[in-house]
Amino acid sequence: MLTPYELIRKKRGGDHLSKEEVDFFVKGYTSGSIPDYQASSLLMAIFFSGMNDEELLHLTSAMMSTGVVVDLSGVPGCKADKHSTGGVGDKISLILAPLAAACGVKVPMVSGRGLGHTGGTVDKLESIPGFRTKMSIEEYKRILNDVGLVMSAQSDDLVPADRKLYALRDVTATVESIPLITSSIMSKKLAEGIDALVLDVKVGSGAFMKKISEARALAKKMVKVGKLHGKRVAAYLTDMDQPLGREVGNWNEVVESVQVLRGESDAKDVIDLSVALTAEMVSLCSGKSLQASAKLVKGALASGAGYEKFLAMVRAQGGDLDVVQNPEKYRQPRTVREIKSTGAGYVASMDAFRIGMASVKLGGGRMKVGDAVDPVVGISLLKKVGDKVSRGDVLALVRANDGDAARTAAEEVLSSYRFSSKQTYRGTLIKERIA
Amino acid sequence: MLTPYELIRKKRGGDHLSKEEVDFFVKGYTSGSIPDYQASSLLMAIFFSGMNDEELLHLTSAMMSTGVVVDLSGVPGCKADKHSTGGVGDKISLILAPLAAACGVKVPMVSGRGLGHTGGTVDKLESIPGFRTKMSIEEYKRILNDVGLVMSAQSDDLVPADRKLYALRDVTATVESIPLITSSIMSKKLAEGIDALVLDVKVGSGAFMKKISEARALAKKMVKVGKLHGKRVAAYLTDMDQPLGREVGNWNEVVESVQVLRGESDAKDVIDLSVALTAEMVSLCSGKSLQASAKLVKGALASGAGYEKFLAMVRAQGGDLDVVQNPEKYRQPRTVREIKSTGAGYVASMDAFRIGMASVKLGGGRMKVGDAVDPVVGISLLKKVGDKVSRGDVLALVRANDGDAARTAAEEVLSSYRFSSKQTYRGTLIKERIA
Repeated sequence: MLTPYELIRKKRGGDHLSKEEVDFFVKGYTSGSIPDYQASSLLMAIFFSGMNDEELLHLTSAMMSTGVVVDLSGVPGCKADKHSTGGVGDKISLILAPLAAACGVKVPMVSGRGLGHTGGTVDKLESIPGFRTKMSIEEYKRILNDVGLVMSAQSDDLVPADRKLYALRDVTATVESIPLITSSIMSKKLAEGIDALVLDVKVGSGAFMKKISEARALAKKMVKVGKLHGKRVAAYLTDMDQPLGREVGNWNEVVESVQVLRGESDAKDVIDLSVALTAEMVSLCSGKSLQASAKLVKGALASGAGYEKFLAMVRAQGGDLDVVQNPEKYRQPRTVREIKSTGAGYVASMDAFRIGMASVKLGGGRMKVGDAVDPVVGISLLKKVGDKVSRGDVLALVRANDGDAARTAAEEVLSSYRFSSKQTYRGTLIKERIA
Repeated sequence: MLTPYELIRKKRGGDHLSKEEVDFFVKGYTSGSIPDYQASSLLMAIFFSGMNDEELLHLTSAMMSTGVVVDLSGVPGCKADKHSTGGVGDKISLILAPLAAACGVKVPMVSGRGLGHTGGTVDKLESIPGFRTKMSIEEYKRILNDVGLVMSAQSDDLVPADRKLYALRDVTATVESIPLITSSIMSKKLAEGIDALVLDVKVGSGAFMKKISEARALAKKMVKVGKLHGKRVAAYLTDMDQPLGREVGNWNEVVESVQVLRGESDAKDVIDLSVALTAEMVSLCSGKSLQASAKLVKGALASGAGYEKFLAMVRAQGGDLDVVQNPEKYRQPRTVREIKSTGAGYVASMDAFRIGMASVKLGGGRMKVGDAVDPVVGISLLKKVGDKVSRGDVLALVRANDGDAARTAAEEVLSSYRFSSKQTYRGTLIKERIA
């Protein structure tokens, strides 16, 4: 007979758990028959002993099976999603999903809310007045079929095991484990019923993975587990040493995304990354080369077809099209504070983590699950790494609803900038592709 | 502010915990403010990351301080105790304590009950009709002062942290950790208010430590922690590949101890180990050489002074002197079953663990805390490693109150014997001294 004790002892000793044992643990913990103190002990043993590919496959499958697994076979076409491990200013999903749909990919995107220094796609979408991220599975499928994309929040019946395990990991210092991160992400993505998946693994000061070696290890495991589940998967290691684009917040990130889709943005990093990741989705689905796929994506961007898909999706999900098309009609924050440079030369670096936290402190993010976020606050980064700056130039704007918060955030953002007399190396936006 | 999360994260990352952090954990867990799931996670992190000597000192002190620390300063003389990590047939305490007292050492001995395959001194003592192992602290000190030794069970207010931590370790596979074993043993021994301590670390098939390297590491840590607490400490690594002596059980082990104290036993291993460990206690207390101390101990054994101390202790603690002096008056088990040899040659090995478990199954031990034990059942080993055996010779006797149990135990004991045609190496009883 299987016992939680025996599983812990095996894993502690570096042995591998069988499919039966992993199932027993995941089901037992989710149902409550295995107590928290044994689960946390096993999680820590996994932290130290790791898991091989088979264990990870079993863990991911077992977690996925604790909840609803969406059946999208009724929706014709190749279904693909993208997942980012989280960064600051990462609004790629808002651009990529409609672009991919414009290129014929069906995009059933399930996103999360922001936590800690990183934002969440759901919070950004919900800053659009009227936008609904919760819907019935029938409506979800209908929008996906009719519009070609749908962007929803995770429902409570998607991988309940992960919700319970993540809450435990969060208080027992077992979040930072590659097998546990892999199974958490992949169980949710695989439950979406997709055919293909692009993973954006962030690396740098504003990412969970600070080192490229860790990011690479995670990416490889996720790709492996996805493929073992019969999916087409590719992962990218991308830069998160500075925020993506010029906007950090919720509504201001929607505006930046709309600008990109309308061809009105100069945020080269956002455009380049959106094109690359969308091209990968198109390539995985169509079998076309990455180059040919990128050409298609750029065409959909230039023609406005991506923007049209975005508007169609907002309309289908109840969002106010008028403010999306005319952002100046959106309500404004009480204060917009300019941050002037105290240094001169070139921006050498920006601490993405601190900028993310400054946005959280303004009310744009949350430190714990369930907190409300303020859609209108945020930070606009007028100067980024590599830009030339004179003393007194405006580096950034703080959009706040509270004067004290604005002052604190301004100090935080200012001190996150480093200058140098020479234009230093900018870092590569896309560091590696793993497939 | 200290948080359990931060402690787990530090230990998980291989950092060292400060005195303040260790105190926070031990007090918080004992009082209930730190939940089981965070404690078990930290215990597993300690299992993998270990603890340095300072952390171990702090952990031991913090655990000790959660309960009563006995003050024996009112009792004149050097107070010394011995602790064994547990074995099969280990009745050394019953012989050593009175012998040490006969040599002028004050022996305030606090012992445990048996669990699993190993017996406990308290269970053995309680097989003596009327014998009390629980008493007030005043009576405890009075007997120690008047008789020179007192043998009691652990009271509930001795290191409550250990009781709670051990129960958690037991179900989360974190028992087998050298720092956790060290702090568990040493916190209890140091709380006894002793000046000197002899540690008997068992190695072999019937011990918790199967490998000498593990036993040595544990012994070194315990000696180190004892010395850091200002105590005189020495540890011995001793053989537990076969049971100690001829008797395994409760009352039959008392009888064997009495036989040794009366000079009526041929159990050379029991005699030699008792003399060696008692001599160490005498040496630690008196400053005399080990050789001179051993001479004193042998004298106390030969003169019957040790036996007199044993009788005085039994009398003081309410035990029936008549059956101790005349064991044939003790009630007998229903069945005594002979185990006849199916092999011939020399006994090459005996699996101490299986023999211990056979005794447990007869009712002589317990698999879980709180179970009752049967004092009269047990196993008498007529043949031990190195003895010459002909087919049909009686190897052992099973003393049982149940015919089925007797048959099962007999099979178990028989199959624990291995024979060889040559008289093979016996192993060394005392392998190392660590001080």
